[in-house]
Amino acid sequence: MGLEQKKAVVLLSGGLDSTTVLVLGREQGFAMHALSFDYGQNHKIELESAKRVAATYGAVRHVIAKIDLRSFGGSALTSDVAVPKHRSAEAIGEGVPVTYVPARNTVFLSMALAWAESLGAADIFIGVNALDYSGYPDCRPEFIAAFEAMANLGTKIGSEGQRITIHTPLAAMTKREIVETGLALGIDYGMTASCYDPDASGAACGACDACLLRLKGFAEAGASDPAAYA
Amino acid sequence: MGLEQKKAVVLLSGGLDSTTVLVLGREQGFAMHALSFDYGQNHKIELESAKRVAATYGAVRHVIAKIDLRSFGGSALTSDVAVPKHRSAEAIGEGVPVTYVPARNTVFLSMALAWAESLGAADIFIGVNALDYSGYPDCRPEFIAAFEAMANLGTKIGSEGQRITIHTPLAAMTKREIVETGLALGIDYGMTASCYDPDASGAACGACDACLLRLKGFAEAGASDPAAYA
Repeated sequence: MGLEQKKAVVLLSGGLDSTTVLVLGREQGFAMHALSFDYGQNHKIELESAKRVAATYGAVRHVIAKIDLRSFGGSALTSDVAVPKHRSAEAIGEGVPVTYVPARNTVFLSMALAWAESLGAADIFIGVNALDYSGYPDCRPEFIAAFEAMANLGTKIGSEGQRITIHTPLAAMTKREIVETGLALGIDYGMTASCYDPDASGAACGACDACLLRLKGFAEAGASDPAAYA
Repeated sequence: MGLEQKKAVVLLSGGLDSTTVLVLGREQGFAMHALSFDYGQNHKIELESAKRVAATYGAVRHVIAKIDLRSFGGSALTSDVAVPKHRSAEAIGEGVPVTYVPARNTVFLSMALAWAESLGAADIFIGVNALDYSGYPDCRPEFIAAFEAMANLGTKIGSEGQRITIHTPLAAMTKREIVETGLALGIDYGMTASCYDPDASGAACGACDACLLRLKGFAEAGASDPAAYA
């Protein structure tokens, strides 16, 4: 690192995981550039959370990029297909759920790559997690490794010798470990939103896969979740 | 192929290459779904060309997706950096030019992948060309192969056993061969737009890398380019 702080782009949904990643990246000394998406998701509450989180936890810049994934269809998160509730721990993570948005992390990482390259940054952070996760193919370590290889071939900075790295600091952590790490760093998880199906006030449903995984993490960490539940 | 025609997504800029690819894909029996982008490019003339081409050459659907790459900066095609003119054949293809849009093909292919997956399609067509090309890293065969590998890991259809294929029918063709192929298929190249810097009427400049490569292709094919030049 020279005199100038190294820049990195972080994908920030405003949820528990990406908020933790933003703080971890900053702890590593990066100037964090936070990227969120208005992609036609049913619930914009997560964008409000992302704004609060970016401002509170020191993102040097926060861009909310508009992309229309809704016109492609295919997910409960961008259509009126019902979000499944109260699934068992065994059911979560088995198969790909209806909340999967086709190729979402590929699109999001590609946009992060475009911004990183424009900034001259070779580091991208994403809060994927392969242990307590929802069964999405684009959260698996082998996908991230393949994306990184592709990114190094498909960009000017990669093809000119700088090494692009996709950082996944949560990859090998359980939700319990993520919660413990974040609480130790002083993160106020009350400002994060994870629910796939919040009510009009923004309160989490407590029953979708994302809520169940989150609540399990807090319970196992022996902590209480400060987020509002309906 | 069953009774239903197989669906494919084609990236359609409205230029010579992608128009040829659209027609080649249809010739192979695919129901072609054309995808263009309004990505903050300086010149919207290419979107008008894409519309005409999609309608004329039998795309079953044409989507123009809005993505804001302009807010990331970094290219002569999305900013007021001057487009270089009258570069020699040797200079074109050496190094990455200022018209390179950071990670553009990665972003475009990712969006194509999202649409393909929503359609249940496993085939994507792109008109990249590695012989007479502009020196963009994201046009090289090794990039396309890496993208395909990543796509198969990062999607539901790929991870559930369907094989996603990125078709690059122009990859090993010279511009001359592309022009000859298209003319043999009866394509009216007068409705395609390749120029990086057209005038207000839509006439091509005849001097940017894209025009020079195109004109060279027509000259070598012994044909005249029906497009309007300033």
